[in-house]
Amino acid sequence: MSLTQSSAGSIASTASVAARRLAVLSNAERNEALTALYEGLLANKDAILAANAKDVALASRAAEDGDLNSSVLKRLDLSRPGKYDDMLQGILSVRDLTDPIGNVTLRTLLDDGLTLERVSCPIGVLLIIFEARPEVIANIAALSIKSGNAAILKGGKESTESFVAISTVISQAISSTRVPKSSIQLVQTRDVVSSLLAQDTLIDLVIPRGSNDLVRFVKDNTKIPVLGHADGLCSAYVHHDADLDVSVKVLVDSKTDYPAACNSLETLLVNEAVLRTILPTVAKALVAKGVTLKCDEPSKGALADTLDSVEMSSIVDAVESDYNTEFLDLILAIKTIPASAPGSGVDAAIDHINTHSSKHTDIILTKSKATADYFMSSIDSAGVFWNASTRFADGMRYGFGTEVGISTNKIHSRGPVGLDGLTIYKYLIRGDGHRAGDYFDGVGGKKWKHEALPL
Amino acid sequence: MSLTQSSAGSIASTASVAARRLAVLSNAERNEALTALYEGLLANKDAILAANAKDVALASRAAEDGDLNSSVLKRLDLSRPGKYDDMLQGILSVRDLTDPIGNVTLRTLLDDGLTLERVSCPIGVLLIIFEARPEVIANIAALSIKSGNAAILKGGKESTESFVAISTVISQAISSTRVPKSSIQLVQTRDVVSSLLAQDTLIDLVIPRGSNDLVRFVKDNTKIPVLGHADGLCSAYVHHDADLDVSVKVLVDSKTDYPAACNSLETLLVNEAVLRTILPTVAKALVAKGVTLKCDEPSKGALADTLDSVEMSSIVDAVESDYNTEFLDLILAIKTIPASAPGSGVDAAIDHINTHSSKHTDIILTKSKATADYFMSSIDSAGVFWNASTRFADGMRYGFGTEVGISTNKIHSRGPVGLDGLTIYKYLIRGDGHRAGDYFDGVGGKKWKHEALPL
Repeated sequence: MSLTQSSAGSIASTASVAARRLAVLSNAERNEALTALYEGLLANKDAILAANAKDVALASRAAEDGDLNSSVLKRLDLSRPGKYDDMLQGILSVRDLTDPIGNVTLRTLLDDGLTLERVSCPIGVLLIIFEARPEVIANIAALSIKSGNAAILKGGKESTESFVAISTVISQAISSTRVPKSSIQLVQTRDVVSSLLAQDTLIDLVIPRGSNDLVRFVKDNTKIPVLGHADGLCSAYVHHDADLDVSVKVLVDSKTDYPAACNSLETLLVNEAVLRTILPTVAKALVAKGVTLKCDEPSKGALADTLDSVEMSSIVDAVESDYNTEFLDLILAIKTIPASAPGSGVDAAIDHINTHSSKHTDIILTKSKATADYFMSSIDSAGVFWNASTRFADGMRYGFGTEVGISTNKIHSRGPVGLDGLTIYKYLIRGDGHRAGDYFDGVGGKKWKHEALPL
Repeated sequence: MSLTQSSAGSIASTASVAARRLAVLSNAERNEALTALYEGLLANKDAILAANAKDVALASRAAEDGDLNSSVLKRLDLSRPGKYDDMLQGILSVRDLTDPIGNVTLRTLLDDGLTLERVSCPIGVLLIIFEARPEVIANIAALSIKSGNAAILKGGKESTESFVAISTVISQAISSTRVPKSSIQLVQTRDVVSSLLAQDTLIDLVIPRGSNDLVRFVKDNTKIPVLGHADGLCSAYVHHDADLDVSVKVLVDSKTDYPAACNSLETLLVNEAVLRTILPTVAKALVAKGVTLKCDEPSKGALADTLDSVEMSSIVDAVESDYNTEFLDLILAIKTIPASAPGSGVDAAIDHINTHSSKHTDIILTKSKATADYFMSSIDSAGVFWNASTRFADGMRYGFGTEVGISTNKIHSRGPVGLDGLTIYKYLIRGDGHRAGDYFDGVGGKKWKHEALPL
């Protein structure tokens, strides 16, 4: 902790040494550190909130001057009702999760006296770069320790005072336990980030949590694997047999429940056959919630015939780039899918989504299980839902307890990433002088048993 | 196939379209293509061997001129006894493996009528770059089709004739099945490789199979995730309580069974306490097999007192860089671990290995289960073995049927990579108009069930 003056190399190698010591601790020893973390943050609540108030005061002035988004200000404020307690509770929730380390996922008898095991283990050293929200430091510290990984944390400049206060408490709390103090290191200066991103022999995984710009910067500037999503361009397709009520409920929730979230709806594909049945009701409900609809010609034509003039003032012409845009706002791009297209339109919808979506979460509205199954196996996204809101794409909602972030990667971990995403495995063999050269076809060659053993 | 003239972009986008079609085929449909592949390669054996003979003739002249390594020549020759039949049998073995696609690994009742599933699915588009061995094209084609991935294959220039012959047969064989013909594309020209490595939006994973130089080139020139190992710097540690007979058997096999393999032993760490008991017998056995031992001062001193002068001619002085060298030859670096070090030496051995090894496979020789367990949880490598040869690190030996390669990555897939390493998963939710906004703490808020359902 507080290694702001150290070079990236020494931060990373210190973390690497800590990671090795963490890897051999028991679940009880790791949990003990989480309890200490919880108690430390509970006991120092006043001091931490005082530090946070300084950040909030500074940010309020910046917001008044128009230099800071008001949503950043909101995310920064730890004194909002329930927020501090949620942070504390989160640490206990992580502590009480099943140990992700040391689980045997494969056990094979290779030959008499020669067994193979695949055992889950920590990844090693994580670099986590995040923006405003100060409670993330506590969540991430808890997740990292629970999974036996060392973490290097870099927070946003708006929350400097909060970070220093929280990290001092974390540091003190951990030092009374078997978890090495340098398992969690805080980096405050921005210029060290580029140097850390170059430490690909010591840092095993980078997790950027914040704006698309942050994620893209990280992906473009490191050889270390990056876990995260730059975009959440989620789409919905309304098939010709969709249920009206289900469509309205799901689409309004997907678009308006929290428009700034990565799992909010950005593109609506409507089968031509329901342009004058389902679309108008959906559009009226969305417009009533303040959504602007960017329509192609057929959908606009259908709405012009059914919406009143006040409602029509929320309908504008779509341009091609709207179908590649993550609005993160009360704006929805609408495109018509010809009913005469293959699969009565579902294939065209699949093609559009696989070409334009960011592989985050995409949904279909249909009464047909067969159509839904086809859509779900064809769409190449981390989440594919049938008659349910895109907003369900979330670690807490999935029942993971918490999440490190949502991944649109195609390898390792996809969708909401929980503790499992912070682990990997190693293969262990136990023998008694066994030689590989003894196993071969032919005279004198030993034969493999390859018997699955109970886990 | 035969898209040598096409641009990298069109190759990658063709593969991407094929991947989407592959993703919805059943196991039976994919297996049918593997049967066709097998039958095609069986029926065209003579033509393929004739093409291969041309490659071998050219390579033989290059080898005579000293322009080609004789081991490359050996790997190139498909007419060696059993090799063609092994290739054919490999396709049937892959076909008969359990379907890696569509397996539900998590099923949760989120709420009444709202279920979450995690289902295994193909990664998408693989780019596989390999060197001499022509049978790899058949293996990789089989693995890719079985796992529902499209593959772009680039082979080495020495095997051009063989590749064209095999790929023509594969192309014909597939075209009679539901598997899209462009699921397997062969790229022959070297200059297209760099452009393919730039297709990070269309290609999901690169697997280089060949020299360290090839792997490093690929890792340094792409943003696409790379699965593979650049080095196999495997170490063994002989603890003070190791069994003499077990040590000799395991170490001789690890070093001499196949010195050019990535899972061969390169560094031997010897506890000071056994320098004059175990080391001399091990050294005599290794020297008898033609191994040169590069020793530090204490180990050389111990051997000078026990080996005869002929044997001592195989003992040379180690330099520091030897402990970072993958010799791939009958050479072994030996270093002494002070017995007075923490953990009676095991901690120093762990530190050395975690600092110098390439995280491939490392082993310990000890009679103590506790010491072995500590070593196995402390060593940060894909394989950690107790009293067994490093040479067991292999997909076939692990019982995976076959392997795509061995990974020293810290994420996704580690160690020998079988079919599982070519899959990822997606999350599917099935609902009935469910809105995320209905779930919250407080009056009127729906509560999560989060019940694990049977798989």
